[in-house]
Amino acid sequence: MTQLKEIGVAVLGFGTVGAGVVETLQKNGELLAERLGLRLVLRGVADLDLDTDRGVAVDRALLTNDAKSLIERDDVDVVAELIGGTGAARDLILQALKLGKPVVTANKKLLAEHGREIHTVAEENGTELLYEASVGGGIPIVKALREGLAANRIESLYGILNGTCNYILTRMEEEHLPFDEVLSAAQAAGYAEAEPSLDIDGHDTAHKAAVLASLAYGCIVPLDKVQVSGIRGMAAADIAYAAEMGYRIKLLAIIRGGADGVEVSVQPTLVEHRHPLATVSGVYNAVLVHGDIVGTTLYYGRGAGRAATASAVVADLADAALNLRAGGRRRDLSGVHARTPVVFREPGGIVARHYVRFSMKDQPGTLAKVAAVLGAHGIGIDSVMQQEAPADAEYVPVIFVTGKAAERALADALKEIEALDGVIDRAPVRYRIEDSD
Amino acid sequence: MTQLKEIGVAVLGFGTVGAGVVETLQKNGELLAERLGLRLVLRGVADLDLDTDRGVAVDRALLTNDAKSLIERDDVDVVAELIGGTGAARDLILQALKLGKPVVTANKKLLAEHGREIHTVAEENGTELLYEASVGGGIPIVKALREGLAANRIESLYGILNGTCNYILTRMEEEHLPFDEVLSAAQAAGYAEAEPSLDIDGHDTAHKAAVLASLAYGCIVPLDKVQVSGIRGMAAADIAYAAEMGYRIKLLAIIRGGADGVEVSVQPTLVEHRHPLATVSGVYNAVLVHGDIVGTTLYYGRGAGRAATASAVVADLADAALNLRAGGRRRDLSGVHARTPVVFREPGGIVARHYVRFSMKDQPGTLAKVAAVLGAHGIGIDSVMQQEAPADAEYVPVIFVTGKAAERALADALKEIEALDGVIDRAPVRYRIEDSD
Repeated sequence: MTQLKEIGVAVLGFGTVGAGVVETLQKNGELLAERLGLRLVLRGVADLDLDTDRGVAVDRALLTNDAKSLIERDDVDVVAELIGGTGAARDLILQALKLGKPVVTANKKLLAEHGREIHTVAEENGTELLYEASVGGGIPIVKALREGLAANRIESLYGILNGTCNYILTRMEEEHLPFDEVLSAAQAAGYAEAEPSLDIDGHDTAHKAAVLASLAYGCIVPLDKVQVSGIRGMAAADIAYAAEMGYRIKLLAIIRGGADGVEVSVQPTLVEHRHPLATVSGVYNAVLVHGDIVGTTLYYGRGAGRAATASAVVADLADAALNLRAGGRRRDLSGVHARTPVVFREPGGIVARHYVRFSMKDQPGTLAKVAAVLGAHGIGIDSVMQQEAPADAEYVPVIFVTGKAAERALADALKEIEALDGVIDRAPVRYRIEDSD
Repeated sequence: MTQLKEIGVAVLGFGTVGAGVVETLQKNGELLAERLGLRLVLRGVADLDLDTDRGVAVDRALLTNDAKSLIERDDVDVVAELIGGTGAARDLILQALKLGKPVVTANKKLLAEHGREIHTVAEENGTELLYEASVGGGIPIVKALREGLAANRIESLYGILNGTCNYILTRMEEEHLPFDEVLSAAQAAGYAEAEPSLDIDGHDTAHKAAVLASLAYGCIVPLDKVQVSGIRGMAAADIAYAAEMGYRIKLLAIIRGGADGVEVSVQPTLVEHRHPLATVSGVYNAVLVHGDIVGTTLYYGRGAGRAATASAVVADLADAALNLRAGGRRRDLSGVHARTPVVFREPGGIVARHYVRFSMKDQPGTLAKVAAVLGAHGIGIDSVMQQEAPADAEYVPVIFVTGKAAERALADALKEIEALDGVIDRAPVRYRIEDSD
């Protein structure tokens, strides 16, 4: 084989993903060299902990505690940041970019919180930032949005982006189990963190939604413009009622662009069984994209895990290497710096049907009172389902499916209903319904 | 807005797709310029017929009969070939490549039949060929295979790649209609050609399968190594029997790589209802890709049509433009020239379970005779389903689901069964079963 050009790679962070990247380069390095016509060569792996067994054999000489010096080496052309978080990761990314070295990262939190700074430094230094692994694990969704669908105005994006939440919701539905029990099982199985808030409260999904929205609309998305609610404490009953009505509940990131701006939200959402996202089960992720030219497209795969994430990181390393060989970065970063400023709609403006469950006093007239308040706020009622309750229960569950209404109007109506005397005994549960149209 | 670099585009062929490309450049040209930091400028549209209304307003001065001169113009940087076929299209592509101009094409037939020649000329002239639109319409599956999944050894690919066939099969199943009636309706609705052979006999799917296999395995795939059977004349009864057993019948391209080579085939295949491809309905396409690192990924969208195809063509134009700005092509063409030669398994080697329907003499002992022949060829039987027939029928339909067996072995066994005296009255129907595992 002829001598191929070598591109030196530094891996920062020797945790799960870092080890997966090293393993992938070892396993498929030859194949990659064939495909690319150049060779990705691992120059070093930096981590504070060099003793833990990562399940991959690496020459000790490649391991270092000193990430800064590794980045500076002349034979390091590309840097993969796989440390996570917004501390050392940010410093090291900025260091590499200032040296004009392209950076590959899986760090959605950093992108969501410090995207503007990092993109700006990349641009100022004529280099690039690649982040396929930050959303959807091994699914090449960033590339699809950035390149494959470049000809399209993105009308909307619907994503199941957090495997932990989807695993919990899938098991709750399939096995009729309560939230706490499934969360504990997921923690035991390693599908959920001991401190699960980032996942189950929707923040991880929000970070990913911000990344996708920035790609779709060419802008930095301020996290405070993202409306977030998670799945913590979801009642098994709501999953069962939704199923009876022909719906599954999924934690969806929903991004919609329109004449009056872009709206980004993360919330548990009812989708019909025939909806393309309804059948995405367990730890899988999927993104449904509506483009004005292409129509509907869908991307599906494992959303996390050592190997799937490594697949995305190595694809980005390959892209960076090809761009270096071609004489520089290929895209300028206008992809995330729209020339026309993007307006974010205030949360609450999304118009949708809703599932609302009240715990309602079991006596004549209460239903009429609730319906009257909804009506006064312009919210129609598509259906009402009253559940049977024990004979002596004072309050019974009643489920309303509303007509299309702005979330803000519904929130106002529900507040008013809560204030009614002796009608309901606790805050109603409400979820958006995403119709397939 | 600052003056952006302009990339001149020539569109060859002003048919459905050509008009879609012109329309997309008009509609989203400004957005593209923002995203790319350069401007795609239409320099001309060549077609022999300049009078037919294409539903898109184009300056007459841009229209020409003279494709050759258009390609030669100094201000034409990229050429989109949307003529189709293997005559003028081939000549014009070669002309452009020899001038060092990148070519974007949607022409799977040309790629499948003349891929080696065209790739070689592109390589010799230091330019590139982009063909996202050749497979899966607007789904960025070529980019996913070529770039997004670059780190993966591709284990297998399963594709629904022909919208016409999928539309026919979907309607046959959902409305219990016979093949001929649905084909006529599809022709009337413009979903099938007056001469439907390219679609319904599987050739179009085979061309696309060859393109996907070439991307996955870095080689040119000779069409005579692709086993092809289509859906012409499929019996409504088989679709109904399959449904009873929990399967749908889809025309699948199946590409599998293994230690002993690569196998490419196109055939009607039974997939379980829960299989990810089972729910792909109507004119939609989908590709399921198994990579050794990423695991399972799926790509779904409209497989054909003016707009979806235009989305892919314009994405390729954008890529070519970015590569030109970066100083040249970005990938060498090793992506389709594997350094290790690829062996193609002879058709018939794929091991699978099968659905086989016999029209079997309704008398004791015939079932045993058929089972004995299968057994003698090492083919197990997973289940047998005998259908009720009119009381006076001499032959009744009997369906076998075989155990896993090589297709070759099954073909031999069936030939032997056909030769049995008075056991079956016509050639058995057989389809592969693709289990979800």
